Amino acid sequence: MAVVCSVTTLAAVLFNFVLLFSFTVGAYPTPGQFTEGQPWPLPWNISYYDFNHTLSPGKFNFKTAYKCDIIDQAFIRYQKLLFPSSKKWDDNIDDDFGAGNDADPSLTFLTVTISEECPTGVPQLGMDESYKLDVPSSGAAVLTAAQVWGALRGLETFSQLLFHPDGDENVYKMRAAKIRDYPRFPHRGVLLDTSRHFLPVNSLLANIDVMAHNKFNVFHWHIVDDQSFPYESKTFPNLSVKGAYSKRHIYSQDQIKSIVEYARLRGIRVVAEFDTPGHTESWGKGQPNLLCDCYDDHGKKKDEQALIDPTKQSTWDFLLALFKEILEVFPDHYIHLGGDESWFWIPSCWKNNPIIQQFMNVYGFGNDTQKVENYYFQNFLKLVDRARRGAKFIVWQEVLDNAVDASEAIAHVWKGGSYAEQMQEMATVTANGHYAMLSSCWYLDIFKYGSEEIEGYYKCDPQGFKGSVAQKNLVLGGEAALWGEMVDATNVMARLWPRASAVAERLWSDPAQTASFTDAWPRLHEMSCRLIHRGYASQPVNGPSFCPIPYSGPPS
Amino acid sequence: MAVVCSVTTLAAVLFNFVLLFSFTVGAYPTPGQFTEGQPWPLPWNISYYDFNHTLSPGKFNFKTAYKCDIIDQAFIRYQKLLFPSSKKWDDNIDDDFGAGNDADPSLTFLTVTISEECPTGVPQLGMDESYKLDVPSSGAAVLTAAQVWGALRGLETFSQLLFHPDGDENVYKMRAAKIRDYPRFPHRGVLLDTSRHFLPVNSLLANIDVMAHNKFNVFHWHIVDDQSFPYESKTFPNLSVKGAYSKRHIYSQDQIKSIVEYARLRGIRVVAEFDTPGHTESWGKGQPNLLCDCYDDHGKKKDEQALIDPTKQSTWDFLLALFKEILEVFPDHYIHLGGDESWFWIPSCWKNNPIIQQFMNVYGFGNDTQKVENYYFQNFLKLVDRARRGAKFIVWQEVLDNAVDASEAIAHVWKGGSYAEQMQEMATVTANGHYAMLSSCWYLDIFKYGSEEIEGYYKCDPQGFKGSVAQKNLVLGGEAALWGEMVDATNVMARLWPRASAVAERLWSDPAQTASFTDAWPRLHEMSCRLIHRGYASQPVNGPSFCPIPYSGPPS
Repeated sequence: MAVVCSVTTLAAVLFNFVLLFSFTVGAYPTPGQFTEGQPWPLPWNISYYDFNHTLSPGKFNFKTAYKCDIIDQAFIRYQKLLFPSSKKWDDNIDDDFGAGNDADPSLTFLTVTISEECPTGVPQLGMDESYKLDVPSSGAAVLTAAQVWGALRGLETFSQLLFHPDGDENVYKMRAAKIRDYPRFPHRGVLLDTSRHFLPVNSLLANIDVMAHNKFNVFHWHIVDDQSFPYESKTFPNLSVKGAYSKRHIYSQDQIKSIVEYARLRGIRVVAEFDTPGHTESWGKGQPNLLCDCYDDHGKKKDEQALIDPTKQSTWDFLLALFKEILEVFPDHYIHLGGDESWFWIPSCWKNNPIIQQFMNVYGFGNDTQKVENYYFQNFLKLVDRARRGAKFIVWQEVLDNAVDASEAIAHVWKGGSYAEQMQEMATVTANGHYAMLSSCWYLDIFKYGSEEIEGYYKCDPQGFKGSVAQKNLVLGGEAALWGEMVDATNVMARLWPRASAVAERLWSDPAQTASFTDAWPRLHEMSCRLIHRGYASQPVNGPSFCPIPYSGPPS
Repeated sequence: MAVVCSVTTLAAVLFNFVLLFSFTVGAYPTPGQFTEGQPWPLPWNISYYDFNHTLSPGKFNFKTAYKCDIIDQAFIRYQKLLFPSSKKWDDNIDDDFGAGNDADPSLTFLTVTISEECPTGVPQLGMDESYKLDVPSSGAAVLTAAQVWGALRGLETFSQLLFHPDGDENVYKMRAAKIRDYPRFPHRGVLLDTSRHFLPVNSLLANIDVMAHNKFNVFHWHIVDDQSFPYESKTFPNLSVKGAYSKRHIYSQDQIKSIVEYARLRGIRVVAEFDTPGHTESWGKGQPNLLCDCYDDHGKKKDEQALIDPTKQSTWDFLLALFKEILEVFPDHYIHLGGDESWFWIPSCWKNNPIIQQFMNVYGFGNDTQKVENYYFQNFLKLVDRARRGAKFIVWQEVLDNAVDASEAIAHVWKGGSYAEQMQEMATVTANGHYAMLSSCWYLDIFKYGSEEIEGYYKCDPQGFKGSVAQKNLVLGGEAALWGEMVDATNVMARLWPRASAVAERLWSDPAQTASFTDAWPRLHEMSCRLIHRGYASQPVNGPSFCPIPYSGPPS
């Protein structure tokens, strides 16, 4: 565990010097340096008019002829975001602070036009998120989009053109601008892990809100793992009764449905991950005989069970029934099937296991446990397809590195030490013809002191590898991964934001216009302060600073 | 900035392996492994009876014949802590969860006896914090202390004997125990920095509460620094008007008084730090001619002012008037006068400065800027003594390392790379006859991934150096220092706790009984869950785990 930051005590002293030096001589932006009314992530085409509108609470409306619950709900949300009903004042505000509240507004409505019909289902990979937004200095403000998903992104951008000069919450100014915008990548995700630590429903919902503010469109829910099984299965209730940390650490199916619905209304997909054949120790608690017994190198049975046992028919019956249920609960076309790090358990739980040895003998696999893993996955993918015809797969890259036949599956790339190695992983996976999405450089659970961390996130590019155009076109995006070993409800919000915001811009915006983190910082700082003003605990990541409107707790 | 953790991307991959390995093979405690009803920090003498009391809301009282606002208020606080009036239920609780609420209580009161009179002022260094607590299996529960400060510590311990079996908040059990307890060190502090980022008053108050739960007794308020000057001076209002980030980022004197009072009621000293002659850039904004102009090595004036100018009479007049005020606002006998890192500005702002050069010439200092610094401090200490007769000083170790004559001052030790070097600093300072307190190993602003970090905090010992008994006796304690570069209201609570709790036990408890972090962890985990149950965002620091009663937001 000492690899990354092994010299704390030395560091304490060095950093005191280094910080001082850095913050004093201007290697960091001036505290409080930020933009006003500039969106994050950066739109592909944005030109500002030399004019700021004045808006006034109670004198602004969204208008549309479009009938759709998604838009109806979005209007309510953005009305509240623009004009929070309950102001929180702190003790330092003068009574006359807030002149301008009664100013005559120059902008009183935004008209939203959407060409395609209101969708009946959840958003899916490939949804059209493009939009056009015109907020001219005079005349009507108009937002147009082909699909409702694009309109949601446009509403977010519109809300970010608003600013409060000098932090005066009673003065509502809005930049006049013309915007043409669309995402660079179709898969822009955040991974949260609810097995190492449980995250209560309200934490997940709050993060879905902040994801929407950052134009993320996938909540990758790493819902179960070795440590706990918080998913409530109706088919196999013992999985959570025995596998969850406690009965207070379980997601009911009703709760899961409410989360999927909450995300749908914000144009966010919920892609669940049920990781097998490794990372399944908690599964074994509620499902006897599912996991293999493990043995030491002398053939002595260990007090440990791990890796799903592919030799038993009961295993396959269980998996079919479970995934039938899962694929009803999670309506996304894709399911994440995991498949990482089996190597860790294979020596003791498969290689040393006499039942698996016999199985390998029968199947002519010799000593090659890789063939067992591929056998497992080959059959498992067919099974999941039986569970829901046409189900699509995301897997951690090992599965495809190991040449399991799953040409349509998306390889989730997480390997690579240096950035160069990470890019080589992307090159290899795409050279093998697989769709790919990147997380290697965005393991946000690993944290370190200093502002170069977020700059590193910002500069990592999923298409930054050497490869053909065809290879680059296989890149669908990436995910910020916040593994849960050190994260729970107490710190998930501050740990994730604004660090994931850096990833958000990389996945949405034009790389040519977002090459410099130094240029981006004032706008990112405004975004972080915007999140704080909206009630989310977006933490400092780049040295001394302040937000004109200080943090005053979660949204009411 | 790349010294500590320069290999994030490599780390991401390595750690995924390492984490997996660690958490799987049992290098970490089992998730959810914790004690029930065991206090943190560990009392010096505690023996448990083989009996747990049942308590019942509405059927328990604190009793005393002692007339004192501190005790009156403490009874109200601990009544609420033991029996929170507003329960927060989550959706996973069964309706029948909570049987036992109406159980017949076996303990219905605690009698508190204090021998010395109710103090008229704030707590000071040397307050008596010892107490005896008897909660027998039958008969009266009694808390006795010489001073009210000891009674406060005993009430905290009493509250920590309470536990809720299996996280059932409606069942109140309390360990029967006999305790004799007192602190190892008289100075046990937490440093918060409100200059790099402003911390709102409610953040400071909440942390004072958590400090009390951990038996800390000093809030070291690093209130101003280069970046901002949030202290409202009545004598020099421009200091904050021009030096604070904004008018929303200022502590009024009324607010400061309320903080000092809040801390007094909890037996916590507020020791303010006004750091000079360096770290003063924000001072110069509201007080022209206070700071020196700085010059490059070719004698060209830079666009920078830093270091207080000791050559002007106006400087000394200003400092006298300001510190007269400060020493009224902060009634602690001690004031922290800073004095660190002047070396950083000295070359350009003193050595290259013609006015200082002339001054050095007149005073016969030659080229020795150290003599200027010592001149400054020697005169400054006299001035502060004039500002309030008998004022006592804490200074960063440089001041005393540089042999300024201040034999009664406490050296605040922050230097030393390795633990061995930190201990050598303590040895040197005490060999020179100075009182000392340690922060070098407890710079909590520097953070790193992995559970060995908190183990390092736990194992660091202020008396762990080689030295005589007389030297060891000069050690007054230490402080967990949370510098503010990356800390504001969004993350201060989770960043500080439970990491500072490790420091709390080292400063309070018997080192012989607290040598093993592995032994301490289940009790520290209970403490962290206790803080969470009380509404404070104490974050995970040691891998996967859960609290039986999940976090549900700040206290109401």
